[in-house]
Amino acid sequence: MYARPLAKLIEELQRLPGIGPKTAQRLALHILKRPETEVRALAQALTDAKQQVGLCSVCFHLSADPVCDICRDNRRDNRTLCVVSDSRDVIAIEKTREFKGKYHVLGGLISPMDGIGPEQLTIGQLVHRVNKESIDEVILAISPSIEGDTTTLYIGQLVKPFTRVTRIAFGLPMGGDLEYADEVTLARALEGRRELE
Amino acid sequence: MYARPLAKLIEELQRLPGIGPKTAQRLALHILKRPETEVRALAQALTDAKQQVGLCSVCFHLSADPVCDICRDNRRDNRTLCVVSDSRDVIAIEKTREFKGKYHVLGGLISPMDGIGPEQLTIGQLVHRVNKESIDEVILAISPSIEGDTTTLYIGQLVKPFTRVTRIAFGLPMGGDLEYADEVTLARALEGRRELE
Repeated sequence: MYARPLAKLIEELQRLPGIGPKTAQRLALHILKRPETEVRALAQALTDAKQQVGLCSVCFHLSADPVCDICRDNRRDNRTLCVVSDSRDVIAIEKTREFKGKYHVLGGLISPMDGIGPEQLTIGQLVHRVNKESIDEVILAISPSIEGDTTTLYIGQLVKPFTRVTRIAFGLPMGGDLEYADEVTLARALEGRRELE
Repeated sequence: MYARPLAKLIEELQRLPGIGPKTAQRLALHILKRPETEVRALAQALTDAKQQVGLCSVCFHLSADPVCDICRDNRRDNRTLCVVSDSRDVIAIEKTREFKGKYHVLGGLISPMDGIGPEQLTIGQLVHRVNKESIDEVILAISPSIEGDTTTLYIGQLVKPFTRVTRIAFGLPMGGDLEYADEVTLARALEGRRELE
C-alpha cells in the first residue's frame, strides 16, 4: 500500500532482528523525513562496515585490519589469554578496564543441538596459540550455561597440559538480593565461596 | 572499542528513533554476519526510498510518482475526501477496506506549543481542493487529542461553508471493557450514542 521504494525499505528493515512490521514502518517513515546526507551516511556506514570489518587473524575479534588493535598493542600482557565466545564479550570486558592481557574469540559455543562442534569454533587455533606463544594463564570467560559449561570443560582438557587454566567467578551479581537469586546462582555462589581476608 | 567502520555503523544506527546503544550494537553485529548482497540491498533501499519517495502533489500522501496511486485510481469516489494527519493514517484506513474515496494528508496537526500553525500544514491546499473539486463530504479522521480537536475545529470552520463535514466516531474500542475505559473515552461514547435500530 506504500509507494514501492518505501515498501521495499520496510521489507528490508524487517529482516533485522527484533524489528517487526510496525517498527520497520516507523523507522522507514522516520528515515524519509531525515536529510538526504544523513540517509546516505547510514547507507554508506552499512556497506563500509560489511566490506571493511573482518576477523583478526590472531584472536578472531572483529577488526578492520588483518591484526586487531588489541593484538598489536605491545603494552598489553602477552602471557595472559582471555577466551570468550563473542566479540561483544571482548567489548564488555574492555569496559571494565580490569584486564590487560590478550583475547581469543571462539566465535560461538559448542552446541550439538545446533550442529556446532569444536571444529566450527576457533578452538584449534587457540590450542595452537597456547602451544606456540608463551602463555602463563588462560582465563575462560564463558557464560554459565549448558553450552558454556561444555565448551569450558572441552577447552580446559585440551589446554591444561600446557598452561594454567582458570574460569571467571559465578555468584550473586553486585546489588543482587540473595532472597531473589535463583537456586543455580546461589549454588554456584556457595560453591565458589572464599576465605574472608 | 570496536573497529572504526563498525563503531561508525553503531553510531549511525543510534540516530534512529527507539534504537539505543545496546540495540544499535546488536543490529550492527547482526549486519556484519549477513551476506554482502543482503547488506547492499538494505543500503540501496535506504537511498532509493529517500531519493524516489516524495509527496503526492494532490493529496500529499507519500508517493514515488508526482500523483499517488490512490489519487490516480478512477474507480475511487472523487466526491468524498478523508482528511488525515499523516501518511500512516492513510495506510491504516486503507487496511479496513471500508473507504473508497480519496484522501488529504495534512502533514501534522496544529500545535502552537511546537510552533506548528495552519500554514505549516496542507490546510490551504485542502480548502483549495474543496473549492475546485466537487466534494460532497469531507470526513475528518483525526485523533481525539488537544491538537487533533483544534485542527478538526479549525478545518471544520473553513470547509463547512462549501460542503458537508463529518468527523469519525469516538467511543469504546471493539473488545474494550467499559469498566476499564478512561473517563474521556466513556464521556465521548455517551455523547456519541445513537438510536438502537
